[in-house]
Amino acid sequence: MFNPKTTLRVLGMLLMLEGFFMWLSIPVALIYKENDMMQFLISGAITSGVGFLAYISTRKAHLEVTKRDGYIIVTMGWLIFSFFGTLPFILTGSIPGFTNAFFETISGFTTTGASILNNIEEMSHGILFWRSLTQWLGGMGIIVLSLLVLPVLGIGGMQLFAAEVPGPTPDKLHPRVKETAKRLWSIYLIFTGAEILLLWAGEMGLFDAICHSLTTMATGGYSTKQASIAHWDSPYIHYIITLFMFLAGTNFTLSYFGFHLKFGKVFRNEEFRYYIGFVLGFTLVIALGLHMTAGEGVERSFRDSIFQVVSIITTTGFATADYMKWAPPLIFLIFILMFFGGSAGSTGGGPKIMRIVVMLKNSTQELKRLIHPNAVIPVRLNKQAVDTEVVTNILAFVAFYVVLAVISMFIMSLFGLDFETATGSVVATLGNIGPGIGDVGPAFNYAEISIGGKWYLSFLMLVGRLELFTVLILFSPNFWRK
Amino acid sequence: MFNPKTTLRVLGMLLMLEGFFMWLSIPVALIYKENDMMQFLISGAITSGVGFLAYISTRKAHLEVTKRDGYIIVTMGWLIFSFFGTLPFILTGSIPGFTNAFFETISGFTTTGASILNNIEEMSHGILFWRSLTQWLGGMGIIVLSLLVLPVLGIGGMQLFAAEVPGPTPDKLHPRVKETAKRLWSIYLIFTGAEILLLWAGEMGLFDAICHSLTTMATGGYSTKQASIAHWDSPYIHYIITLFMFLAGTNFTLSYFGFHLKFGKVFRNEEFRYYIGFVLGFTLVIALGLHMTAGEGVERSFRDSIFQVVSIITTTGFATADYMKWAPPLIFLIFILMFFGGSAGSTGGGPKIMRIVVMLKNSTQELKRLIHPNAVIPVRLNKQAVDTEVVTNILAFVAFYVVLAVISMFIMSLFGLDFETATGSVVATLGNIGPGIGDVGPAFNYAEISIGGKWYLSFLMLVGRLELFTVLILFSPNFWRK
Repeated sequence: MFNPKTTLRVLGMLLMLEGFFMWLSIPVALIYKENDMMQFLISGAITSGVGFLAYISTRKAHLEVTKRDGYIIVTMGWLIFSFFGTLPFILTGSIPGFTNAFFETISGFTTTGASILNNIEEMSHGILFWRSLTQWLGGMGIIVLSLLVLPVLGIGGMQLFAAEVPGPTPDKLHPRVKETAKRLWSIYLIFTGAEILLLWAGEMGLFDAICHSLTTMATGGYSTKQASIAHWDSPYIHYIITLFMFLAGTNFTLSYFGFHLKFGKVFRNEEFRYYIGFVLGFTLVIALGLHMTAGEGVERSFRDSIFQVVSIITTTGFATADYMKWAPPLIFLIFILMFFGGSAGSTGGGPKIMRIVVMLKNSTQELKRLIHPNAVIPVRLNKQAVDTEVVTNILAFVAFYVVLAVISMFIMSLFGLDFETATGSVVATLGNIGPGIGDVGPAFNYAEISIGGKWYLSFLMLVGRLELFTVLILFSPNFWRK
Repeated sequence: MFNPKTTLRVLGMLLMLEGFFMWLSIPVALIYKENDMMQFLISGAITSGVGFLAYISTRKAHLEVTKRDGYIIVTMGWLIFSFFGTLPFILTGSIPGFTNAFFETISGFTTTGASILNNIEEMSHGILFWRSLTQWLGGMGIIVLSLLVLPVLGIGGMQLFAAEVPGPTPDKLHPRVKETAKRLWSIYLIFTGAEILLLWAGEMGLFDAICHSLTTMATGGYSTKQASIAHWDSPYIHYIITLFMFLAGTNFTLSYFGFHLKFGKVFRNEEFRYYIGFVLGFTLVIALGLHMTAGEGVERSFRDSIFQVVSIITTTGFATADYMKWAPPLIFLIFILMFFGGSAGSTGGGPKIMRIVVMLKNSTQELKRLIHPNAVIPVRLNKQAVDTEVVTNILAFVAFYVVLAVISMFIMSLFGLDFETATGSVVATLGNIGPGIGDVGPAFNYAEISIGGKWYLSFLMLVGRLELFTVLILFSPNFWRK
């Protein structure tokens, strides 16, 4: 049963929160003596005001959220945040046109980082701060979503992790969720703070350190510089950001265990071990390739490699090098990485390492099943047999992902994109990465794409961020029946 | 248990057969008064001779073929056929270099149709006939393999069809298989004969009619002309070949039912209905696109569209138009079609329509399962619930297919191919199609690819043709244990 009042009430609360966060740009404008303070005040007032109206108009609704409400609230939440989030960009005139403003904002809240801005460094500090903040808020939402909401909704194997999180109850979204969310958010806050201090201690100014830390932890990838992290020619900064991108792409439950010194639990986690394995494997091969083909020194090859590998596998999208200028096989490795994504329960997008691992394991198990047709040969994760239904669920997810990507490439080619750019733009938005391949590579952006194309890619960012099923289920007639 | 004597004996018999078929080029050479008769005689003698030696040296082996023998015989069979099949090309000097000769031959026996020949029209009639015959023989092998052998081996959901075929027993390869094979081959023969007559009745000479009919029914796609079917500017010939490509991509069991006038059984078959649906859907969209963008007339647009669509979906690879010159979205549709493949139980390659349908159905069922988490919602095919194990098996197959394709694209990019050509060459060989996209499109061929690249693509043709698992299982340590 769908309960519009509950939905409205929850969305109202969220909007009040968003309005409050917009006001955080006011002190930024004051500090830098910029003249767009008023616009942030008005944006926040409109947003909070609408939220307040929605909230009080539903005072009598009781807050029992059903699964069906859950799907609607999540999808509507991201959409409405993005809709109101455009206000600062529009009122200050920083981004011309609603399509562009919406694209930039949903790219923020979905932590994608695909930008249409050609003049990032001309933006006011308040605008740059709001732009970074959209990603950080999106990241907070994702942590709750992937660790607490989606496991309950049973989406794409996420329930595999439900048991590990100290909190959620199997049936309905329970108030206890709040407690768990606070714990996970405190880790998110601690990491963000630590990164700010470490970047500030390097050659980065405080403002840039704050903005980049907000977008690192969200695996968002918005930068305050047109050249992204390549702006700083500092190994220290590159390695610090690599480290925090890696942490942002790690299951936050594991970081929680890490803070409680339960390292055994962290390193026994199979997804984490594959995550490390993939990062090191790709880094070494690409570093070797760069050293051989681009003639760079060993340290530089390694640093360019690990930064780009971690940036892409975690779906952050920062750049210290333009991989489109690398040798074609190396570009291809980066392209393959775009289909991995971060760990489940991280802020990373994409299909997630856990799903890729289950898919690969099921395929190799199938060979064993052919050799021993009468034996029961399950897929094992963390030494436990995974239910067949969960495996089917994960395989259905991956199949959906690929089919949606292929159909989307066709649609983008209708908007006039060539084969490579159509592929790159779809994979980079559906996977919430940001920079893709072709004409949307790290040295370019999405400004040149047509209006229709931008709306379609915005849709892909939303679908990818909400693990496909959350959005696609709303298009199923069964969902609305009775 | 692996039984080398049985394997040797079966392969010996097959080689004697291959030698005999090589001699069929002798009368062709006589008729056209060409001077390579001797080379065919020697090639056949060597092949049959080796086969005979293998056969008599294992006289005491009894012919009980285990599953394990089955995998080895099938893989070795195709390899050894391709190895000896190079003899006519090498002895006549038609193809310089063993790599090229092997590529052309395995491309024949796997019914792929990827060619390295730039001078097809300079070949002798005997050579062109042998080249076409490799595909026709490969097609005969595939019918038996996909309808009688693979269902017993339990590969990739093929068992879904076992019940429908009048013949195979569930446990071991049984002599009764012979009876069923003969029935299916007689349909193959009848279709080939009918196409020869119909093409001959048009503007095609008898020799070309025979060669093209041999390669149509195998969904092979080798032509006697460098320009493929575009050589004939005849709507009649285009439509006749379209019709027979469609039949070759249809499950031969259904054709068997059709010959016995059981049309109800044919049209109730769900894979067949999707097959028709996909062909018509893609044909109409592409025809409309061609009419709008290329400015061709209605009939010409429709004909170019349906010919290319049927040629690609059935994995034949004939061409009457160079789709690489079409508008990018239309090229993309052709590219998507390369991932469909013919029906299970046809001579077509690729993942097969049945598997694509099961994969898509499972994904949409998953949405229903999310809405009704306590209901059992199976995937249905032909109105029957498909076993979960079979669904998992099919999904594992598709996952393997995609993962193997992606890894192979990387490998081909190491051989110096650009993104598009690497993609095109892999998809076109793994799917046994022939022409791909990029520099291996219909207007080009595989001559320019490096030696290593040709060997790798040969491997892909074999793996794709034998439904992946048959070959890959041989690389599994479990297979050889005890």
